Amino acid sequence: MGLTLAQLASHLGCEFDGDAACLISGVATLVNATAGDLSFLASSKYRADLAATQASVVVMADRDRTVFVGNVLIAKNPYLIYARAAQLFYPEMLHDGGIHPSAVVDPAAQIDVSAWVNALCVIGPGVIVGANAQIGAGCILDSDITIGRDCRLLSNVVIHGRASLGERCVIQAGAVIGSDGFGYANDRGKWVKIPQVGGVVLGDDVEVGANTTIDRGALSDTIIENGVILDNQVQIAHNVHIGEQTAIAGCTGIAGSTHIGKRCAIGGHVGIVGHLTIADGVQISAKTFVSQSIDNAGFYSSGTPLEPNARWRRNFVRMKQLDDMAHRIKMLEKMIHKLSNDV
Amino acid sequence: MGLTLAQLASHLGCEFDGDAACLISGVATLVNATAGDLSFLASSKYRADLAATQASVVVMADRDRTVFVGNVLIAKNPYLIYARAAQLFYPEMLHDGGIHPSAVVDPAAQIDVSAWVNALCVIGPGVIVGANAQIGAGCILDSDITIGRDCRLLSNVVIHGRASLGERCVIQAGAVIGSDGFGYANDRGKWVKIPQVGGVVLGDDVEVGANTTIDRGALSDTIIENGVILDNQVQIAHNVHIGEQTAIAGCTGIAGSTHIGKRCAIGGHVGIVGHLTIADGVQISAKTFVSQSIDNAGFYSSGTPLEPNARWRRNFVRMKQLDDMAHRIKMLEKMIHKLSNDV
Amino acid sequence: MGLTLAQLASHLGCEFDGDAACLISGVATLVNATAGDLSFLASSKYRADLAATQASVVVMADRDRTVFVGNVLIAKNPYLIYARAAQLFYPEMLHDGGIHPSAVVDPAAQIDVSAWVNALCVIGPGVIVGANAQIGAGCILDSDITIGRDCRLLSNVVIHGRASLGERCVIQAGAVIGSDGFGYANDRGKWVKIPQVGGVVLGDDVEVGANTTIDRGALSDTIIENGVILDNQVQIAHNVHIGEQTAIAGCTGIAGSTHIGKRCAIGGHVGIVGHLTIADGVQISAKTFVSQSIDNAGFYSSGTPLEPNARWRRNFVRMKQLDDMAHRIKMLEKMIHKLSNDV
Repeated sequence: MGLTLAQLASHLGCEFDGDAACLISGVATLVNATAGDLSFLASSKYRADLAATQASVVVMADRDRTVFVGNVLIAKNPYLIYARAAQLFYPEMLHDGGIHPSAVVDPAAQIDVSAWVNALCVIGPGVIVGANAQIGAGCILDSDITIGRDCRLLSNVVIHGRASLGERCVIQAGAVIGSDGFGYANDRGKWVKIPQVGGVVLGDDVEVGANTTIDRGALSDTIIENGVILDNQVQIAHNVHIGEQTAIAGCTGIAGSTHIGKRCAIGGHVGIVGHLTIADGVQISAKTFVSQSIDNAGFYSSGTPLEPNARWRRNFVRMKQLDDMAHRIKMLEKMIHKLSNDV
Repeated sequence: MGLTLAQLASHLGCEFDGDAACLISGVATLVNATAGDLSFLASSKYRADLAATQASVVVMADRDRTVFVGNVLIAKNPYLIYARAAQLFYPEMLHDGGIHPSAVVDPAAQIDVSAWVNALCVIGPGVIVGANAQIGAGCILDSDITIGRDCRLLSNVVIHGRASLGERCVIQAGAVIGSDGFGYANDRGKWVKIPQVGGVVLGDDVEVGANTTIDRGALSDTIIENGVILDNQVQIAHNVHIGEQTAIAGCTGIAGSTHIGKRCAIGGHVGIVGHLTIADGVQISAKTFVSQSIDNAGFYSSGTPLEPNARWRRNFVRMKQLDDMAHRIKMLEKMIHKLSNDV
Repeated sequence: MGLTLAQLASHLGCEFDGDAACLISGVATLVNATAGDLSFLASSKYRADLAATQASVVVMADRDRTVFVGNVLIAKNPYLIYARAAQLFYPEMLHDGGIHPSAVVDPAAQIDVSAWVNALCVIGPGVIVGANAQIGAGCILDSDITIGRDCRLLSNVVIHGRASLGERCVIQAGAVIGSDGFGYANDRGKWVKIPQVGGVVLGDDVEVGANTTIDRGALSDTIIENGVILDNQVQIAHNVHIGEQTAIAGCTGIAGSTHIGKRCAIGGHVGIVGHLTIADGVQISAKTFVSQSIDNAGFYSSGTPLEPNARWRRNFVRMKQLDDMAHRIKMLEKMIHKLSNDV
């Protein structure tokens, strides 16, 4: 599929500069672009890459246009316009509605005629699959599950535990939604399982990464609001609540009943303990350990710096002496003030 | 299903106070409970929630009963009694014995007539499935695997590597048991795979979380003793041995040949290096890095505190100077003692 | 299968000492070995285990042979020779070529006649499976995927996103290759998905652990070079590039566009942020946080030591005061020098 620069600019709502009839049919990085590609300058610091690019048009901020002689699309947020252009040139390939003959579908499931259920899926009783939804091969939707219209499940996704997905959710392969939460009472040294009877509610436009796990609630539901995006191998425990448009990067784990605000950005490999409240608009850098609630928007971190191992070992030992060092500094201050007075 | 308060108290072995004929049919939190629900006061600090609860009965410690006017069940461990009540009101839904016609079962597998094998499972030769076991949709039991009676495997579980499960184990969706351990020798810069020929032995009442992985042993077996509970996305490497009734929270990884004691409680996102020994009764807080054996029961931790990013950056830099700071403190102490003597 | 010690020595290219006719048919640890087993002494520090071993032959370094009266194979790298012997005694069990009747194979897929496709696989259009490849039960190869000759996929592996595997790759169960990268632009507070249209290229002899995830590139490809070994639950983000023979242990995550050199050894639970460059030959210890590029080979670490929780809490608080402590030490040094001059 190709569009002229003028058509593309009109579609994307951008001003353009250059050859209105130039044909664009794909996107690529500045370095890899060839004729017919749209590329983008995400930041002025990459200006050097403009000189050699073969892109037919480059999306850039107004301040950068003077340094480029080729076709340009002007945008306040070039990365966003690149995203929109990529959506245009690489639309999702949707199957027509239907159910693959190898799928095992319970008679008490309701699959919209426009939805596609791929090979070797298992769809249990009480499952509702909405219009145009795409259920990838090998998915298992256990029972009493609702999949909103235009949802897209990649392969081998498992959903159980009375989960409900809003519209346009995308669930990557191997994700598990609705597994039992980690709830046990202890009876004189032996673990007693607490039945997990809550559900999972995903809003609209939620994205869930590959092999990510979201537990069902213990009694009430685990809730993921509209527009939340979860990367691969994220672990969401029972009764967690995540506010809308929050992004969580790979390998992060959130323990039970923690409430994360809206529009948070949480880095990879972060660990957040249970029963906390994280305010709206909080950013947390990668590998941070969050052991207390965060009341105000802002950027938070923890962790220690990378060092050559030999030097790290020396500093590592000293960390056990920190409190002692602090006391010794205080003592030195007292002594020196006394001495200063004495002299 | 409903029980009178008197019946429930008798079943749970608790003293009760209030309307013996009151009907109870479910459990809920104090805040969400409606008529017919049992709720619980896990700790006196939640007493404030009692005032507005609609629960028909609340399980609580004897010391708390004076503050509540409704029906009560008295328990030393209210959380445990809540667990037992929830088991009563929400029993597992078990399928009758049988094999779904879409499952692929090797003629050399032995499936007990009372066991249920759901759709699209693959059961290989030499697999033994015990009485009343429930094998979820899409599970793959490769070959020479034993599943004890009353085990419950959720969907898409994979077991290979000569694994054996005791009785009443619960394996959540997407878990992999018996994958090859990460064993390689190095031949002048190239990795040479070491065949992993050990097995995995799970005791009775073991629970394995969603997308958790347990490697088979290299030569001898990986061993998970009775009553161990593993949360989601836990990684257990080859030849690890975990003692009975130990609990391990999500995203924790345990490297090869480490031996964890009995009744340990290990937080989420903990990393334990290989070839260590952790004593019985050790508790480890979330995100701790364990690089040495732990010889005595107790509560252990590592990690750095969360701070606003700007302040963290200043302290972060200083961590590289800790050894230097310690030397300077020592030098200051020497100088000040000399000065004190001189003055 | 059994070999005489002489045959085995010849096959492994080792010198031997002892009964040339002794029959060897398996491998075991020094402690567990019985008659007929080969065992190995990986390091002189385990010499004490030699006394009681029942092994029929022990592989060891020349310097250790004097302490053992039994049959020995002499090797510079005993662990490597053990690996080679284990490969000999425990060869992979390969299925003859064929496609299980329950597999769903698109007519436009090309499966070599010598390849084996196990039960309930889904093989899409444009998939090419090379000679002798073994595709485990429940694997889903979406479309336009190339599997090189002699690859071995365990159960429930999912591959999509235009991925290509070289020869002799081993992919453990539940791994996902070719999931969408975590790429979004932000439009006034709402996430806009960026189509991920790059592929994944695995070289020859790559090993991928259970439930490990490798994202496809955003525009260009994610690249894993020859001989890379990835443990379980590793997360490789879009456009990461990993150099040949690099090893990455379990639960480690590598963020987008980071370039890891050749022959690196990266421990478990390591987090590496995006857009970094890690030199060839870098070793990183477990649980390290890598937030900057590493320009030179060497051994690097970060992290804090394990302590009893009460002591840790005291030191934990002090970490927030580190910058303050450093300033106070500097002030003390100034004061004491002034005092020394004054006295």
